[in-house]
Amino acid sequence: MLLETKQSASISTDSILSNWMGHRNLTRKIIYAFPEKELFTYSIGGMRTFAQMVEEIMIIAEEGMNGILTGVWNPVEGSQVMTELMEKKSKTALLKKWDEITDHINHIWPQLEPEHFMKVDKAFGAYENTNLGTIQYAYDNEIHHRAQAYVYLRALGIQPPFFWDRY
Amino acid sequence: MLLETKQSASISTDSILSNWMGHRNLTRKIIYAFPEKELFTYSIGGMRTFAQMVEEIMIIAEEGMNGILTGVWNPVEGSQVMTELMEKKSKTALLKKWDEITDHINHIWPQLEPEHFMKVDKAFGAYENTNLGTIQYAYDNEIHHRAQAYVYLRALGIQPPFFWDRY
Repeated sequence: MLLETKQSASISTDSILSNWMGHRNLTRKIIYAFPEKELFTYSIGGMRTFAQMVEEIMIIAEEGMNGILTGVWNPVEGSQVMTELMEKKSKTALLKKWDEITDHINHIWPQLEPEHFMKVDKAFGAYENTNLGTIQYAYDNEIHHRAQAYVYLRALGIQPPFFWDRY
Repeated sequence: MLLETKQSASISTDSILSNWMGHRNLTRKIIYAFPEKELFTYSIGGMRTFAQMVEEIMIIAEEGMNGILTGVWNPVEGSQVMTELMEKKSKTALLKKWDEITDHINHIWPQLEPEHFMKVDKAFGAYENTNLGTIQYAYDNEIHHRAQAYVYLRALGIQPPFFWDRY
């Protein structure tokens, strides 16, 4: 018996990680491009500061990886460690935490089996989705908030790194 | 002989289309949320107007689909039809074109075979990538520019639709 196999195209989890890491490189450059004061204070139209958006991106990434691996989820709000970090208003400390989370993602990712990605879970105790869908949301959300920082930088007269500059 | 098969997780082209369509729904709502005048005139920090960004998003989507299907690529700049559309400065006309391109994507997509997605091509005559990589770039780029319109709307005192409102 011959089984017909149809070749299929898809984005592998390796590619997802590689795309995400490219975006994280760019987001790091955008954090770096801010003057320290404006990173923690500047906003337009009553929106959050970019540091506050970065806090959200970092928590989603860090707790998201933990939740997907273990099935135990913390809420997005209210980590004591993160609150203390934000109170420092230090760009260096923010970038240090950013890099730690990058390492954390790269440490957790190879431990994830297909079952982890395909499992339906209540992410952060609130958002029901496949874990792969949760990762997609985190990915999209990071692009979204970083793009808002592009406008902040332009309004401050600073030319941001190019969108394709992910290395 | 038993063949061991390892289950794998990945994002199928069906899911990519479905995610993209969700984002296109949201982008349409953001276009709609602008007052017509500001859609074509408002900007922050010397950036493009949102209509100009939408023009780019539309060309990439429309010509991208054509290029991937046929292997014949037009450059991103300089379509006469698009130039005339932009000169109208009409929100209704822009939304009409947006919807036509949504239909166009949904018409082309089912014609794409795995070979189309996996082919390496010089997208728009300029950017060498797999066609799937080009689609990913278009997807990310749409989120990026739409997010900038969120800041424009907030600066104009208008509350934009929620990021998760993709229906």
